[in-house]
Amino acid sequence: MPYPIHGHIAGPIVMIGFGSIGRGTLPLIERHFTYDAHDIHVVAPDDTHANLLAQRGVKFHKLALTPQNYREVLDGFFKGKPQGFCVNLSVDVGSLDVMKHCRRLGALYIDTVVEPWAGHYFDESLTPAQRTNYALRETVRTEKQANPGGTTAISCCGANPGMVSWFVKEALLDIARDTGHATQMPQDRAGWARLMRDLGVKGVHIAERDTQAPAYPKPMGVFVNTWSVEGFVAEGFQPAELGWGTHEKWMPENAYPHDTGCQAAIYIDYPGALTRVHTWCPTPGPQYGFLVTHNEAISIADYYTVGEGANPEYRPTCHYAYHPSNMAVLSLHECFGSGKVQEKHKILDENEIVEGIDELGVLLYGHARNAYWYGSRLSMAETRELAPFQNATGLQVTSAVLAGMVWALENPQAGIVETDEMDHVRCLEVQRHYLGPVEGHYTDWTPISQRWDRFREDIDESDPWQFRNILAS
Amino acid sequence: MPYPIHGHIAGPIVMIGFGSIGRGTLPLIERHFTYDAHDIHVVAPDDTHANLLAQRGVKFHKLALTPQNYREVLDGFFKGKPQGFCVNLSVDVGSLDVMKHCRRLGALYIDTVVEPWAGHYFDESLTPAQRTNYALRETVRTEKQANPGGTTAISCCGANPGMVSWFVKEALLDIARDTGHATQMPQDRAGWARLMRDLGVKGVHIAERDTQAPAYPKPMGVFVNTWSVEGFVAEGFQPAELGWGTHEKWMPENAYPHDTGCQAAIYIDYPGALTRVHTWCPTPGPQYGFLVTHNEAISIADYYTVGEGANPEYRPTCHYAYHPSNMAVLSLHECFGSGKVQEKHKILDENEIVEGIDELGVLLYGHARNAYWYGSRLSMAETRELAPFQNATGLQVTSAVLAGMVWALENPQAGIVETDEMDHVRCLEVQRHYLGPVEGHYTDWTPISQRWDRFREDIDESDPWQFRNILAS
Ligand SMILES: NC(=O)c1ccc[n+]([C@@H]2O[C@H](COP(=O)([O-])OP(=O)(O)OC[C@H]3O[C@@H](n4cnc5c(N)ncnc54)[C@H](O)[C@@H]3O)[C@@H](O)[C@H]2O)c1
Ligand SMILES: NC(=O)c1ccc[n+]([C@@H]2O[C@H](COP(=O)([O-])OP(=O)(O)OC[C@H]3O[C@@H](n4cnc5c(N)ncnc54)[C@H](O)[C@@H]3O)[C@@H](O)[C@H]2O)c1
Repeated sequence: MPYPIHGHIAGPIVMIGFGSIGRGTLPLIERHFTYDAHDIHVVAPDDTHANLLAQRGVKFHKLALTPQNYREVLDGFFKGKPQGFCVNLSVDVGSLDVMKHCRRLGALYIDTVVEPWAGHYFDESLTPAQRTNYALRETVRTEKQANPGGTTAISCCGANPGMVSWFVKEALLDIARDTGHATQMPQDRAGWARLMRDLGVKGVHIAERDTQAPAYPKPMGVFVNTWSVEGFVAEGFQPAELGWGTHEKWMPENAYPHDTGCQAAIYIDYPGALTRVHTWCPTPGPQYGFLVTHNEAISIADYYTVGEGANPEYRPTCHYAYHPSNMAVLSLHECFGSGKVQEKHKILDENEIVEGIDELGVLLYGHARNAYWYGSRLSMAETRELAPFQNATGLQVTSAVLAGMVWALENPQAGIVETDEMDHVRCLEVQRHYLGPVEGHYTDWTPISQRWDRFREDIDESDPWQFRNILAS
Repeated sequence: MPYPIHGHIAGPIVMIGFGSIGRGTLPLIERHFTYDAHDIHVVAPDDTHANLLAQRGVKFHKLALTPQNYREVLDGFFKGKPQGFCVNLSVDVGSLDVMKHCRRLGALYIDTVVEPWAGHYFDESLTPAQRTNYALRETVRTEKQANPGGTTAISCCGANPGMVSWFVKEALLDIARDTGHATQMPQDRAGWARLMRDLGVKGVHIAERDTQAPAYPKPMGVFVNTWSVEGFVAEGFQPAELGWGTHEKWMPENAYPHDTGCQAAIYIDYPGALTRVHTWCPTPGPQYGFLVTHNEAISIADYYTVGEGANPEYRPTCHYAYHPSNMAVLSLHECFGSGKVQEKHKILDENEIVEGIDELGVLLYGHARNAYWYGSRLSMAETRELAPFQNATGLQVTSAVLAGMVWALENPQAGIVETDEMDHVRCLEVQRHYLGPVEGHYTDWTPISQRWDRFREDIDESDPWQFRNILAS
């Protein structure tokens, strides 16, 4: 069976960045779109994969985008051409600037993170609040309000942020069905928010367990991850952040709300990768996750708010609860223990991973059935069958990029959108083929159901799903 | 060159327990002592190694010692025989009871930990204070005071507790030499304590980094360690404990002193294996260690006290700062995250470890040369050349047991002793052959010299070596 063609890209395709995600996205673009094969480009400062690109007829431009050159570079590709597509899968490139300029040029745009220009994450002159994803997301929201509509630009359409927003909707429909809550699929944001509220959902973990591993010991002095080390270190050192639910009765002492913007989230003045939470995934059952800041923690809490501002009628708590690969857990332990980030970086690739899956889903908790995990349990082994040049983590991201690109081609005048605002049915229809088993699992587990009880802990017995209980001490 | 014979054991040799340490100790006993080869015994409830013992002519008694049967069992071995040796390398056997009975029987005795009878560590009816090593050590101190002198019984003579107490003395002599502090080797406890004080030592980390690793990923649901999993889990879940120095200006909120006994230590009402400290070892440089309670943290602080009780003139801070093997770091992460101890246990053995060393030493800090690490950097590779049936961690322990046995044979009427009270020169003379490179390293590192500075931390800049700075937040 040939791969389905999902659309036609009339103008140039420009991929910015060709790291672990870019490399996995290229074959999906090649498979599922028609386009002018002489007008596809990669822009990146490192030429590790120049030969691979040459062999595939992709034009490689060894170049770092900067605040100074990005307009000129983009003009060179897109000006005077039919509508092209800018696929931004880089680090250190200011996504908002690139997005705005693409919209000016009429080129479709997609990224997987609101990325600032180089230097921002570790800029010591910034306050913790300025270093949050909340602040980064607000820059995109502001632009969207200032310039509504126009050429479609999709913000944060990877696995998470991205696909998990579609999973939240699937999970809500499943819970509605399983709890006898008669419902039509909501048709707008307000409808989805009311559904989540009516089901009694208190919060959502983006609950992930990555068990991918190679058959060699962790090398000392190397940060090993299953996707961008730069990306993970940057977000891991940002303050922990979470969408802040209306049911919460307690806030950590070092947590702060925001005075401006949507006010859906708070941040904790402590690195997310040092902030552990109690969470649950199907394979391990109860486990620690790291409360690493992510765009979706804020966008989901915002999207499902009934009312608005700092004191809405309803809002779920939402945050990432990430158990990265064991190699990455050890890398963090080494990094924080040594007081500096390892100079050597390593992304585990499909050739060296000998076992494991990336189990990435959403855990909706607090409702009549207690908690429901819905997500993709994609193994490295199945990934090898599905697509080249990537591990399971990569394919969950790249297939979301594919779905986002299809949606953009089908909705080219939607303006700036987040994945919560897209048609999740259509997107998952495109993506599902690449996700391995996509499953829903109910669990009786709560953050206080299996607590070590010989030490004093600050627990709220009256409501298991308080963040106070989720935050590990 | 034949192995040197260090002494003659006139009566029976009874080894209690034949786990990773017992198995490694047997070949050293066979090499370095003369004894009646028909009167050597192993008592243990599991018969995994029954065949190995049969092949070597060692009599195996499949039996769990209990508070009910231990007298009878020991009587059966030792009564009416020339002076034998009881080598207790078990878990779940009350060392004090066994020690007392051996002394009654006139048998020499050695162990590597003050072990309570089965059930104690996880007895939920006990207070945290009752679950400390402080309380366990006090039971031995009380017995020593009540019954001074008599047949030698050595308490806690493994690598740590054990060998590291001898390293502290070597380190003090090195620092004295290197700082031009004219000194004779002290001849008694008071002399050693004054030397440490006069050198300005504020504290001692038992600073260990174990890099031993196999070439397979950590299996989920298995606690993997390089020595007793039971032993490590038990101490890891005990409250964190440390000898408490007179220079300390701040105490954690959940820390408590003791009202009775030597008062040299405090405990923290939190599991040691969840309590991270900033420490230093030669190979990694700065790293996290876990503040797991250990007998030597208390005994060393006590031994080097000038004055006595809760407010002495001088006392060093002393605690374990343990970076176990990466497999064990992951095992702890999994265990605490899941809320229960893994049912499957695995001790990495010499056949599967493909790389790594156990770097175990003492870090004496606060003196004129800042900090000095002195210890053994024994690799798995060198261990293979030196002795069979063990990894590097094991050999550091079993060679300390050997040294302790030699010292006991040479000092058979010394009563109950801790390793701080033994002749460290003689002990290390026996042991050193098995320790790989034994080295001293000065370092400029302090717990605040490489701190991540974008988050608020509770740091005392006025004195880098305050425990407040050492305790990781
Ligand atoms: N939303 C998600 O689920 C998700 C998942 C994984 C990765 N991501 C994001 O996707 C991006 C790419 O991830 P990755 O794993 O491929 O990262 P990577 O570190 O493997 O690759 C980054 C790429 O960016 C390029 N780059 C760096 N500076 C550049 C510049 N100034 N101009 C152009 N290119 C530049 C690098 O050369 C490299 O090709 C990251 O921002 C990451 O955070 C998102
Ligand atoms: N001081 C040190 O440096 C140091 C280092 C390592 C281990 N240790 C201690 O040494 C001891 C042995 O360590 P290991 O790694 O060999 O442990 P292990 O878990 O490998 O073996 C424990 C042994 O004790 C036996 N045992 C259990 N219950 C018993 C009972 N009721 N009666 C008799 N035997 C019983 C088991 O059958 C097994 O043979 C532990 O107490 C450990 O804490 C001390």
